[in-house]
Amino acid sequence: MSIRIGILGYGNLGRGVECAVRQNPDMELAAVFTRRNPEDVHILTETASVCRVSEAADWKDKIDVMILCGGSATDLPEQSPEFAKLFNIVDSFDTHARIPEHFANVDAAAKEGGKVGIISVGWDPGMFSLNRMYANAILPEGKDYTFWGKGVSQGHSDAIRRINGVKDGKQYTIPVDAALEAVRNGENPELTTREKHTRECFVVLEEGADAAKVEEEIKTMPNYFADYDTTVHFISEQELKEKHSGIPHGGFVLRSGMTGWEKEHRHLIEYSLKLDSNPEFTSSVIAAYARAAYRLASEGQTGCRTVFDIAPAYLSAKSGEELRASML
Amino acid sequence: MSIRIGILGYGNLGRGVECAVRQNPDMELAAVFTRRNPEDVHILTETASVCRVSEAADWKDKIDVMILCGGSATDLPEQSPEFAKLFNIVDSFDTHARIPEHFANVDAAAKEGGKVGIISVGWDPGMFSLNRMYANAILPEGKDYTFWGKGVSQGHSDAIRRINGVKDGKQYTIPVDAALEAVRNGENPELTTREKHTRECFVVLEEGADAAKVEEEIKTMPNYFADYDTTVHFISEQELKEKHSGIPHGGFVLRSGMTGWEKEHRHLIEYSLKLDSNPEFTSSVIAAYARAAYRLASEGQTGCRTVFDIAPAYLSAKSGEELRASML
Repeated sequence: MSIRIGILGYGNLGRGVECAVRQNPDMELAAVFTRRNPEDVHILTETASVCRVSEAADWKDKIDVMILCGGSATDLPEQSPEFAKLFNIVDSFDTHARIPEHFANVDAAAKEGGKVGIISVGWDPGMFSLNRMYANAILPEGKDYTFWGKGVSQGHSDAIRRINGVKDGKQYTIPVDAALEAVRNGENPELTTREKHTRECFVVLEEGADAAKVEEEIKTMPNYFADYDTTVHFISEQELKEKHSGIPHGGFVLRSGMTGWEKEHRHLIEYSLKLDSNPEFTSSVIAAYARAAYRLASEGQTGCRTVFDIAPAYLSAKSGEELRASML
Repeated sequence: MSIRIGILGYGNLGRGVECAVRQNPDMELAAVFTRRNPEDVHILTETASVCRVSEAADWKDKIDVMILCGGSATDLPEQSPEFAKLFNIVDSFDTHARIPEHFANVDAAAKEGGKVGIISVGWDPGMFSLNRMYANAILPEGKDYTFWGKGVSQGHSDAIRRINGVKDGKQYTIPVDAALEAVRNGENPELTTREKHTRECFVVLEEGADAAKVEEEIKTMPNYFADYDTTVHFISEQELKEKHSGIPHGGFVLRSGMTGWEKEHRHLIEYSLKLDSNPEFTSSVIAAYARAAYRLASEGQTGCRTVFDIAPAYLSAKSGEELRASML
């Protein structure tokens, strides 16, 4: 029997989950729940239903894992605890500072409902977190580095688009090669914000807008750009559409550590991702953890979990025997 | 209270474990067990005992986890099941093809003794296996690649040293850059053995030995060298000692996969290690899994486990709360 998946919220992430479910033969998409009018939402899976969020509770016994695809700012802090009372859930809550609070809320709700909730699934938080944790456990003495990119930052692109005179824009976060190489060489550098990443912006101006003024406003924007070396390119709407409509991302997690009685040996652990589509990769991680949620729940477990709490084998469709024979 | 560690076998790996235990404040080395005369074995930890292997059973209640540091060919197939009846154990059994059989033997013994046995811990098998497994679960459609090196292959170095006329030698396995780049570019190449790795040998000849004959014999050796582009350098004993006495290693695990409704997006997951000391890094992984063995046993679990079966948080000295707050 397939694992029956529900998707709550049909944006980039929801569509990504739909695609990921299709790649996993032991899963099927049961329904997509939307705040829009269901008739206006056209999904790709012919066998699945599109329903209003308000109808979700009726699907309690027809969905094994509900995947929450809303945003971390306002959607998930409410939705995850609410739905964890009714369903096993997976979310991609990514406001790092608020994770402990979110964990506590989902844990209480999931225990109340006798369900499993897995939070903060994706690549950062998610696979990057896992790699930081494994590397720290293996090399207790060392230094951690995370670099992001090259990739589109949605938050920074939004910030550009809010500027007066800007019609559209895309921002790429780019790791500084020299910094990455210094880490790989075991130099254990202390890196400032400016030394780790640069920011590259592609901007379409409104007609008659003052390019110099827009550029100045971008480059001096506190938090977003002021602490970085930022490049601004003005391009046509046509060029933005042709060359910058994708959502690529990626990054690097490194730990540089030492071992030996006198700490005489150096080691470098590096994990990296190069992703054509940030939401589709995030969704693919989520689908694997949906399988874990289903299995943990089948064992009678309840409460909140993160990637740290789940044995890797739970993510795979293969049995323990198959995994040992083929991948160990 | 510290986790009391025993080490069985005091070669490179055993010494590595001793160093790793020192870097983990929640562990202490209780005793080293050796087949040699204990008086001839000089360890680094002043507070630990050196004992005969035959005395190990007397330490049943004084050791929480026994780490087996013997070889996979003949030691571990016997020792792991034998000692799993008496102790929680961790081993680094690395004969991939025999892992299912070894798992079954250790599982039966550990269950009989009410203990936990974690097998095949290190980096390959071990961290490389984990990364293969996670990447496969995330990207069900894709292709796997593992490259080893640059590093010293003990087996190939031994093979060189068995040749008539060779006094000493060291062999490095080197991944082919062009192959690695093709994988990173998403070309999903089909690679032959020769295209993936080259082999570089540094050889010290016995006086009067025939260099051309030795070189020919190395390059045509079946299984070890015949399928590779092999370079042979003849050097002095002095140079071998000065430049090639380390045991560096490392490698790359990559998965190149695709997502999207029409598989239109490509993704690359890459994990790599660059290690000054192969045995010390392996030992560091083992120490983290010794912590996991201790905790699993404290929960009353018994039987055999691999890296696939153990939730990452068990490896860390930090609590779940600390991990969520600092690493997620």
